[in-house]
Parts: sequence; structure tokens; C-alpha cells
Amino acid sequence: MTENLAEDLDELARGLDRDHVFHSWSAQSQLSSLVVASGRGCRVWDHAGREYLDFSSQLVNVNIGHQHPAVVQAIREQAELLTTIAPSTVSLARGEAAKRIIGHAPPGFHKVFFTNGGADANENAIRMARLHTGRDKILSTYRSYHGNTGAAIVSTGDWRRIPNEFARGHVHFFGPYLYRSEFWATTPEEESERALHHLRRVIEAEGPSSIAAILLETIPGTAGIMLPPPGYLAGVRELADRHGILLILDEVMCGFGRSGRWFAFDGYEVRPDLITFAKGVNSGYIPAGGVVISDPIAATFDDRVFPGGLTYSGHPLAMASIVATLDAMESEGIVENARAIGETEIGPALAELAERHAVIGEVRGEGVFWAIELVADRDTREPLPAAAMGRIKSGLVARGLLPFIQDNRIHVVPPCVVTVEDVAEAMPIYDEVLSTALEGEG
Amino acid sequence: MTENLAEDLDELARGLDRDHVFHSWSAQSQLSSLVVASGRGCRVWDHAGREYLDFSSQLVNVNIGHQHPAVVQAIREQAELLTTIAPSTVSLARGEAAKRIIGHAPPGFHKVFFTNGGADANENAIRMARLHTGRDKILSTYRSYHGNTGAAIVSTGDWRRIPNEFARGHVHFFGPYLYRSEFWATTPEEESERALHHLRRVIEAEGPSSIAAILLETIPGTAGIMLPPPGYLAGVRELADRHGILLILDEVMCGFGRSGRWFAFDGYEVRPDLITFAKGVNSGYIPAGGVVISDPIAATFDDRVFPGGLTYSGHPLAMASIVATLDAMESEGIVENARAIGETEIGPALAELAERHAVIGEVRGEGVFWAIELVADRDTREPLPAAAMGRIKSGLVARGLLPFIQDNRIHVVPPCVVTVEDVAEAMPIYDEVLSTALEGEG
Ligand SMILES: Cc1ncc(COP(=O)(O)O)c(C=O)c1O
Ligand SMILES: Cc1ncc(COP(=O)(O)O)c(C=O)c1O
Repeated sequence: MTENLAEDLDELARGLDRDHVFHSWSAQSQLSSLVVASGRGCRVWDHAGREYLDFSSQLVNVNIGHQHPAVVQAIREQAELLTTIAPSTVSLARGEAAKRIIGHAPPGFHKVFFTNGGADANENAIRMARLHTGRDKILSTYRSYHGNTGAAIVSTGDWRRIPNEFARGHVHFFGPYLYRSEFWATTPEEESERALHHLRRVIEAEGPSSIAAILLETIPGTAGIMLPPPGYLAGVRELADRHGILLILDEVMCGFGRSGRWFAFDGYEVRPDLITFAKGVNSGYIPAGGVVISDPIAATFDDRVFPGGLTYSGHPLAMASIVATLDAMESEGIVENARAIGETEIGPALAELAERHAVIGEVRGEGVFWAIELVADRDTREPLPAAAMGRIKSGLVARGLLPFIQDNRIHVVPPCVVTVEDVAEAMPIYDEVLSTALEGEG
Repeated sequence: MTENLAEDLDELARGLDRDHVFHSWSAQSQLSSLVVASGRGCRVWDHAGREYLDFSSQLVNVNIGHQHPAVVQAIREQAELLTTIAPSTVSLARGEAAKRIIGHAPPGFHKVFFTNGGADANENAIRMARLHTGRDKILSTYRSYHGNTGAAIVSTGDWRRIPNEFARGHVHFFGPYLYRSEFWATTPEEESERALHHLRRVIEAEGPSSIAAILLETIPGTAGIMLPPPGYLAGVRELADRHGILLILDEVMCGFGRSGRWFAFDGYEVRPDLITFAKGVNSGYIPAGGVVISDPIAATFDDRVFPGGLTYSGHPLAMASIVATLDAMESEGIVENARAIGETEIGPALAELAERHAVIGEVRGEGVFWAIELVADRDTREPLPAAAMGRIKSGLVARGLLPFIQDNRIHVVPPCVVTVEDVAEAMPIYDEVLSTALEGEG
């Protein structure tokens, strides 16, 4: 392809996008301009060959990296055989995918319900919890994102819930977040204790017997990658058990390698009743998500009809891509890589950045799941304003790094296959752009 | 593959399914046993090579037939290039898919929002309608299915809504259905007039200024394939216009060829404000759906943030499969085939069956979208009981035909590529099984 033709393709793509594509979570006059045409590992390219180092994993979903050959191959092979099939039929790929997911779940989980993504995974987990308990209310945190459909968006705590409050039975509470504690806490232990006290009071005030489930991201993702402080999740489990409340852990973003573990909750003293997943399970190569169901909840629906379903539940291409993804992640030690690189490369490098840039208020994370929280003032912890964040975003993209920017934070969330060299290439870019972050901020 | 090995694969698939797969809309102890391993056109096979003539199109989604080579090829090619990308980036495949969909929409539609399936298409259409009008209520019919998530399942009229009523702002009314008229009507014209009178009274009683949208399947699908009687849809449009209410037409099942037209509403004097689609747009080869948005509604979100979105909106493989599907449907005259075969083959053949089988109460449909309504008694129109329907289902499957059975109806819904020979093969099977349908029914 000649260079001109390639540039033309990028322009064609931008034109069609402007004319015909309606985009998520944005005013449509804010045009996107970044064309992505191909990818490999931690890199993507536009048609003209401009290269970007992907430290966003797109929407924090490409855990295995772009275009992993084994997964691409599995999709191509399944595409030759059978691309679509009704959920009520039996499919070998579906059984194999479910078996592999169960292989990474704790004891006491044997069944998987498949969906198309994270939102409908949470919808169906909430449905199961309500029907299993016979109760209505779902408790979730203000700092959370659970998806864009009916119950998922109202479970969500952030601003996106507010124009969408058409579901009933949702109550929000505050989770732990020491850097911006809601509880006047000064240590992780204190934050944990006080956040549990707060949750206990919300449960009591809402009426424990009205509460079906507590829905939590094991590690809140879009909301800021806040690792749960010591004892918090175990404390939530205890509160739930005391009142016959179920615990749903949303592992859509933090699961399947992101935290450096298969499930993020593997790092904590907690076992959920329902696990929701999507993203990392097949890196989004085919839209897929689902619910891993503990035995007592599955048993509820042995003889009682489960009133939920969707046309593409257990879609053969999605299933084949899950099988290939999980096999490759296992055989290539991809989860171990995420953990190691977080410990020895990303964590130390970000700590060093924080030492040199006053704009960094806090760095936190593990695996390939890190947040740099930017502040206008380290003492007041006032978030860096949106305009400055916008400049940071453009600065990073202009230097060939695709960032994940949310509020006043940069999330450093490369694929789990990220190498020492990739990190070494990315850090100076963050460094350079952060150097000018406070310019014009008074 | 030896025959034994193939049988073993079928058994392996059944075992994994039983152990690990949680199924839609069913009690889990009702095991599925039909294994599907491969397909082509209107046929599917299990591992051992048992062949089935697919007159269900799975969940009425495989409009282009199984494993259309051009679509499979497009998926394989896009898989080589780029399998996943964030919705905020620009993608050529996405622009091309949107352009082709717009090419089949009426004038005044220019933008497409992509989702993963039909449920989230309806969720987002409802969101747009509410935000555009500033009103809350969504009116939909009791005989309808719109998906399994928050607002979609509560818009749904059938029994599946009832255990799931956790969304607010939904009101149901009765649509036209002459065979079981809610309005004591005796002609299609009378049914249409009276159904419009009923809708007008519901609108008045609910308060027109509280109603954001009327959401209708252009031709109700799962509920029984009731073609709208003369003037009904035009009358709904008029009522909506009079009160500033939007009209959302759900074309998830009836769209993209099923009715023998690109959109089912092309056959009626009606233009919607929002069109939802999924299924036929790419025959479900990759999970996809979306909303086609009329200009005034799109303009609402030019400068105002649209508060909806999902990780896999505009997924590259889904987009590539839409482009290939719509191109093949166009160049191969697949929609025209669906129309012709409905008129000259399926319609006449079903009419003939109805003459010979007292158990058939009514036959209705067009294109490849037909219902045979079965009754225990032609005078009382008492629906054939579930046990008899179960025997009919097993009888059809045992004879190598995959049926779509819903309540007391057989939906005759083969792929749009169905041939004269396929129909000639299917009809004697229906005939034979219907011959014994009333046995043991007193
Ligand atoms: C924790 C969490 N849950 C659910 C979702 C929703 O997933 P999807 O966009 O696939 O519906 C997301 C998406 O970002 C998420 O991060
Ligand atoms: C008319 C209609 N709308 C919406 C849906 C939901 O689509 P999905 O199962 O892809 O969520 C269906 C599914 O059968 C449907 O027939």
C-alpha cells in the first residue's frame, strides 16, 4: 500500500466515523480522530503506520495483548466450523470454556452463565441474587462502574448513574479510599475498620432482610484502582454472612490477570457467592462476559426456571476465544508476567516518577493495574483540573502512547504481556508529559 | 474422524454442558441434548454427522444461513488484522458497517450506535428517547419480547417480565391480534381501529406529557408473528406525533430480511424515530446489535454527553461481519428470496396444511416469518396444551427438523436463503408430526 493510499484510508475512516457512528459516553461533536487499523502485543497502528504503545489495553480489556496468534487462530478455526448457535443447544466449545473458567474459580463453583459483556453479566448476577434470596435491594459503592444497562448502570456509583436512574432497589455506600477517606481515617487499618462500620450502619438502616446482595468490584477500576485495605473484604463477607446477604464480586476489569492473579480476590481472604467477568476472559477478541455461580445459587435454578437469557449466550466464537486465551495465558505464564512486571518494573518506576513530580498525589496498584492520581496541590489534594488532564492526554498520544485517563488520574494499564522494554519506553513519555502538567495551573 | 470418536465428542460435549453450563430461560435440570458442531446454509450437524434442517434459524437470527462463506471469510480476514478496539477510537470497519445500515434506513437517519445484541439496543434506544423528550414513560405491548436487561425486560410484555420488574417507567397495552382479539373485533380493519382506540385511551389515561416513547416490534416475533392490520402502525405514528411521543420500532427479529424486506416497517405507512436491530444484521456470527438514530435525536447529543456505552460498541469483528453480511444479502438477492419463497412456497404450503389438520387454528406470516397456531379446538380456539407441544417438538427433532416452538405455536422461520427444495423437505415432516398432534388430547 502506498503511503498516500494509507493516509486516505485513515481520512476515509474519520469521515465515515463523523458521518455515521454514534459514540459512547460523549457529546458527538467531540470527534475522535485516532484511527486504529491493526495491532500486535502492546502496539497498535493506524493505516498510515503510525505506531502507538498501548498502555490503556483499550478499555482495560486486552490483557493478552493485541492479536495473540493462538487466539486469532482459534477464532479463525471456529469460524470455519460454526459461528453461531442457539444457547439451548449443546456446544463443545461452550463446555470447554466453562470448564476452564471453573478451573480458576475457588471450590464450590461449578457453573457458568455466559453473556455478551460486563453489563449483562452484572444484570444476571443481580437477577440470580434477588431470586435466590427473595430480597430486592442491591448495595454497591459510589465509586464504581458496573455497566450501562438497567440494573448495572443504577448499581454504578459514578456520574453516569445519575441521568439513568430508572431501576429500583439500589442503595449506595462509600467504600475504602484512604487517599480521599470519607471516614477521617489516617491509616489503612483505620480506613478498613471505619469503612466496615459505615457499611454495617447502612445495612442496619436499610434493613438487613431487604438486602439481596452487596455488589463490589474487588478492586474498583474506572473509579481509581483502590486496592482494598487489610481486612476490608473479609469484613464485608462477614457482614454479608451475618445477614444472609450474598456477595457479588465484579471481576470484569480486575479479573483474568489484570491484578497479577487469575481473580483479584485470590489475593484477599474472601470468597464471593457470584463472580462476574468479561474483558480479560478473552481480551475482548469476541464480545463475551458471564457469571460464575456458586453451588447453592445454581441449585436454586435446578427445578425453577431461571428468568434470564440472551440470543448470544455461549456464542461459539466467543467460547473458542476464551478457551484459547485461557490456555495461552496459562502456558505462557502471562498472569505471572503481569505480577512480576508490576512488582519489579511498573511499581518502582511510578514511585520514582512520584518522587520527581509534585503533581503526583498518589501512586497505587499492583500487576498491570496502576493509577497515578494527579493533584493541583499535594497538601489540599485538589484534583488536577480537566483542562490540564486534557493536555496530558494529548501530550501522551502525540508522543505515541495510548493512555487511559479518568478524572484526575492516569491509569497505567498495559496488556499483561507487557515487557521490561515496553515499560522502559513508556516511563520517559509519562515523565516528559508530567513535567509540564502544572504549567498554567497557577 | 472415526464414528466412535465423533460419538464420543458428542458425549463429551453433553457431559461438559451438564456439569458447567448454566442455560437461559430454563430450569437447569431440563438438560439439553442436541449437540451442534457445524453448519451450512439451512443445515446443521452434530459431531457424529447427524443432520438437521434448521427451520428455527436458531433464535430466528441466522438470516443469511449458517456459515456463509463470504461472512466467514470477512471474519477470518478481520481477525488477522485487529480483533478488538475501544469504541472511542476510529475504525474503518465500523464506519463502513454504519454506512451500510444507514443505506437501508429511510431518509432522515444518519447515525448508528452499536451494541452487543438486542437487549442493549433497546436499553440505549429507551435512554435516548427519555433524554430527548425529557419524559419518563415507555409504552409497550403485553405480547412482546425486548431483551433480558433492566429496561428491556420490563418493556417485555410476556411472562418473562414478571419475576424481573425492577425498572420503573414502563406501561403495557394490548396490540392488535385478531385471532385472539382483546377488542371483540371481527375484521382486520375493526381490530386496527379498536386497538388504536385502546392505545389512545391508555395514552390519555397515563398522561401524554409523561410518555417518552412507544416501543413496538414492527411485527411481534416471539409473541406470535402478528402482522399489523391495515392502518395500525400509521395510526400509532399519528397518535405519537399528536403528543410529542417518540416511536421506537424494535426490528431485532423482524429486520434485515426476515419479513422479506430490509426493514419490516418498509411494508407499512410508518417511519419510526429510532430503530433497534441485532440478529439478522450479521446473522449473529459475532454478537452485535444497535440503534439507528433519526437526525433530531442524534442532534440532541451533539453538544450534550450521551450517558451510555459499552466496551464492545462497534467491535471490529462484529463490524466486519455486518459489512460482509449486508453486501452478500444485497448481491445475492437474499431478501428477495425470503419474500418470494414466503409468497410462493411457505405460505401456500402452510395454508394447505391448515386445510388438512384441524389442530391448526391459524397460519399467518410473510417472508420467512410464519406462525402456525395450534388449538385443541377450532371453535373455542383453546391453545394446544404444553404436553402436546412438547411431543410435537420431539417429533420434529426426531425427524431431523429443528423447529422454533413457542407456547402453542410452531414458528416456521428458516434462514432467508431457504430453497424450494428445503421447503419441500420440511413440509412433509410438519405434516406427519401434526397428524398425531391431537392424539391423547381427548
Ligand atoms: C468493573 C466493570 N464492570 C462492568 C463493566 C461493564 O462491562 P461492559 O462494558 O462489557 O458492559 C465494566 C466496563 O468497564 C467494568 O469495568
Ligand atoms: C424483538 C426482539 N427484541 C430484542 C431481543 C433481544 O435480543 P438479544 O437476545 O440479542 O438481547 C429479541 C430476542 O429474541 C427480540 O426478538
